[in-house]
Amino acid sequence: MYGKGAKAERDIVKKLWEMDFAAIRMPGSGRSSVVPHPDILAGNRKLYLGIEIKTTKRERYYFNQEDVKKLVDFSSRFGCHPLMGIRFVRRWRFFKIDDLAETRTGFRADFENGKDIGEIISILGNDGSGHVD
Amino acid sequence: MYGKGAKAERDIVKKLWEMDFAAIRMPGSGRSSVVPHPDILAGNRKLYLGIEIKTTKRERYYFNQEDVKKLVDFSSRFGCHPLMGIRFVRRWRFFKIDDLAETRTGFRADFENGKDIGEIISILGNDGSGHVD
Repeated sequence: MYGKGAKAERDIVKKLWEMDFAAIRMPGSGRSSVVPHPDILAGNRKLYLGIEIKTTKRERYYFNQEDVKKLVDFSSRFGCHPLMGIRFVRRWRFFKIDDLAETRTGFRADFENGKDIGEIISILGNDGSGHVD
Repeated sequence: MYGKGAKAERDIVKKLWEMDFAAIRMPGSGRSSVVPHPDILAGNRKLYLGIEIKTTKRERYYFNQEDVKKLVDFSSRFGCHPLMGIRFVRRWRFFKIDDLAETRTGFRADFENGKDIGEIISILGNDGSGHVD
């Protein structure tokens, strides 16, 4: 399970470098670390991304409020877009926080509401503000 | 030696959080890693910093060209200011690449040409351009 997550993170880091970002993966994922941080930080001089990576065999993924809050807090302090990147059985989908559905205890990412990485970067790059939600 | 470097990096990360940055330390320092990256990445929505950390017991520190090139390449791709942070016997000094002296084989950081962290952040924040050298 851990190995699978690390492999998924490396795949996205590689993809981001191919898309002209500088991207780094932060082992530990913030859980054991003193400072909460996203799994991946990426930048291309114009756009900065903080990405939390998950893998699932289902069509949806549930986040508790704390997971989402940590990513949002870090991102608004650093100055990056908070994104959830989920690998649903070999298909990646990326979600802005707005793209998640609220549940009673947290948030839900539905496969059909996600976008592929190129699409989401293009949306973020074109939303005017430049670098922070 | 390794432990000392890690401790120095953690001290600077802590200091940056106290100064309202979000900062993360990246273990491995890029040497063994596939992707070269600075020891610390920090951001405060306006200013982004990529910092390489060193410790020395002398009054100067020598970098080879490759070390400097890696930091500059990552930083210009990501969109952050490349900085060298050096702990000279309990006193920290920070250097922009311009503050380093060129040598025949690389660069030299002289204690007296460095600045403290608050000073360098203030200089970078006031140099107009916003986020990239």
